[in-house]
Amino acid sequence: MQYNEVLVGLKTYEAGKPIELVVREFGIEAKDIMKLASNENPRGSSPLVIEAIKQEAGKAHLYPDDSYYELKDALAKKYALQSANIIIGAGSDQIISFALHAKANNKSAILMARTTFAMYEIYGKQTGATILKTESHEHDLNELYDLYQKNTNIAVIFLCLPNNPLGECLDTKDVYDFLDKIDKNTLVVIDGAYQEYAAYKDKNKAIDVQNLIEKYENVIYLGTFSKAYGLGGMRCGYGIANAGMIHELHKLRSPFNITTLSLKAAIIALSDQEFVQSSIALNFEQMKRYEAFAKQNGFDFIQSYTNFITLRYPQTQNATQIATMLLKKGIIIRDLASYGLNALRVTIGTSEQNTRFFETYTNHSRQ
Amino acid sequence: MQYNEVLVGLKTYEAGKPIELVVREFGIEAKDIMKLASNENPRGSSPLVIEAIKQEAGKAHLYPDDSYYELKDALAKKYALQSANIIIGAGSDQIISFALHAKANNKSAILMARTTFAMYEIYGKQTGATILKTESHEHDLNELYDLYQKNTNIAVIFLCLPNNPLGECLDTKDVYDFLDKIDKNTLVVIDGAYQEYAAYKDKNKAIDVQNLIEKYENVIYLGTFSKAYGLGGMRCGYGIANAGMIHELHKLRSPFNITTLSLKAAIIALSDQEFVQSSIALNFEQMKRYEAFAKQNGFDFIQSYTNFITLRYPQTQNATQIATMLLKKGIIIRDLASYGLNALRVTIGTSEQNTRFFETYTNHSRQ
Repeated sequence: MQYNEVLVGLKTYEAGKPIELVVREFGIEAKDIMKLASNENPRGSSPLVIEAIKQEAGKAHLYPDDSYYELKDALAKKYALQSANIIIGAGSDQIISFALHAKANNKSAILMARTTFAMYEIYGKQTGATILKTESHEHDLNELYDLYQKNTNIAVIFLCLPNNPLGECLDTKDVYDFLDKIDKNTLVVIDGAYQEYAAYKDKNKAIDVQNLIEKYENVIYLGTFSKAYGLGGMRCGYGIANAGMIHELHKLRSPFNITTLSLKAAIIALSDQEFVQSSIALNFEQMKRYEAFAKQNGFDFIQSYTNFITLRYPQTQNATQIATMLLKKGIIIRDLASYGLNALRVTIGTSEQNTRFFETYTNHSRQ
Repeated sequence: MQYNEVLVGLKTYEAGKPIELVVREFGIEAKDIMKLASNENPRGSSPLVIEAIKQEAGKAHLYPDDSYYELKDALAKKYALQSANIIIGAGSDQIISFALHAKANNKSAILMARTTFAMYEIYGKQTGATILKTESHEHDLNELYDLYQKNTNIAVIFLCLPNNPLGECLDTKDVYDFLDKIDKNTLVVIDGAYQEYAAYKDKNKAIDVQNLIEKYENVIYLGTFSKAYGLGGMRCGYGIANAGMIHELHKLRSPFNITTLSLKAAIIALSDQEFVQSSIALNFEQMKRYEAFAKQNGFDFIQSYTNFITLRYPQTQNATQIATMLLKKGIIIRDLASYGLNALRVTIGTSEQNTRFFETYTNHSRQ
């Protein structure tokens, strides 16, 4: 059977190793495995969410209210916008897919930083578009603008603020200066999956979403419940833009694209801001330990505005070897070798988890 | 902003009215609303599933094992196939989308019965392909083959066995005769969302999936957990085909396309076949009451191999008016006027629900 040409160049996404896989591959018991690889909230979900899921379990046979009325209403209130400005996705990465399929095609190009969220490229290639990346791994607005000027067919630009998997974050005022120079027919995706963390750490990185989309009709902002809200497994995110763009993207959304329990969980998670804020506070408190650990052990790290930290190694140390050693001890982190980096991305865990990480790491280094 | 041309012709899917919407629109209390519109299992989910969801609620923050190892393994055993023959989707309709994006494009056509599952056309149009339909509302293999011969650019053919929203089902031997005449470069989707019901009612409609995909390399079979398995709200389905086709479709699947709780729910649901079989038995027992009711009230029905029944009205009666009357009384069913039919689709409910339907209907008719 012959398939569409676009499939030829596509590879499947490789997710962080799940605990179940390590159980099978290394024969380590599930209870002894610690996963710091997928930037899940180490505190879990809000207790209110867990209780709500239990109460709604008996509705698993019922399709959700496909208008997502209550969730959109709550998000609209949070951002001081209208429900018509909001689209719900199965994770914010589904909105990435909608945006790309709405704008990009085999005649256009998509622009992004060299090392950023892998799904931009994967979904991008599904449209047949060309992928353009900066030379720098981290976001560099000058380089991005340079490429934008040299290529007249750029349909979509991605800015990941803060950036996954590196952790850095542009200042919002610089982003605005950049957006001022971009044609209104180029769609700019501002991916705020980790924005709650950045806004907490440094107000210069905080994005006023209402102001952003009112000022720029060509911008869509993405948010998610997977990180600070502790709902990674529930697959729920959202896109915010002017009502015209949201109307177009809705044409690509399939009905019931999130589950009945995810809808409930997201509504309750949004109401428990105390859980979110205390999760973020814990995150940055614990992150200091990783920064100190890196300095003590002679390797570098990227200043992080997220719930993970990227450790960069000198040529004398091999990050992949370290990741493999940790895996054999039941600790799953993300090796960034596939991005051309001698670096590891570690999700900031609970105090106990981080202690285990440091101890296992140190014991190995001494061998 | 200019969007891709393909969006111009797209409309958004209109789902059955959710209970929440009727609460808002008509001011009826949620507890007084009865929904027989979305073919959900009226018995709910298996008690084992509900218990498993409650136990797993504390894992809502964790992404699922993206290999879906355990679920694929269980499905492979059920169908006497390999995991490599299986792809998991957020409902089987996500697999429809994968199949279309893998094969169809703006130079090809997609063939289907005139009145069948709406998502074939909606996803089909997203690829830019032309939609071809038979004149007959129900599946007619002669008409389908006639169109197939007259149009050399048909990339995908859909057969919904049994058919939603009409309920009829082709005999499997006739389907095989049809498949024998189809070129191996044309992908045929056999949508078995309601196949468990058809197989129970009439063994001539039962499909041996292992035999089907071994005999036809160009066929993909779709199954779902949304109907007989009682997990409509969990969004989990699957596609079964030869390993080569499944490998290609995986290129279009995004990571974590079902939720952590959906994965668990599907695994447990598959293990509780007693729940499935007793749900189906109840369904056909109750369906007899609808058939008798139709005869008593002077309208027709389509012989149904599903968990719903389609009532067809003579010109002297207006189905839309009846649907509106029932809605005002808090009963949600599906009006098929948008398909050009003077007909209603009613999900077979529990004994109590069906009694309420008949009583409300009869009281109205007497007014």
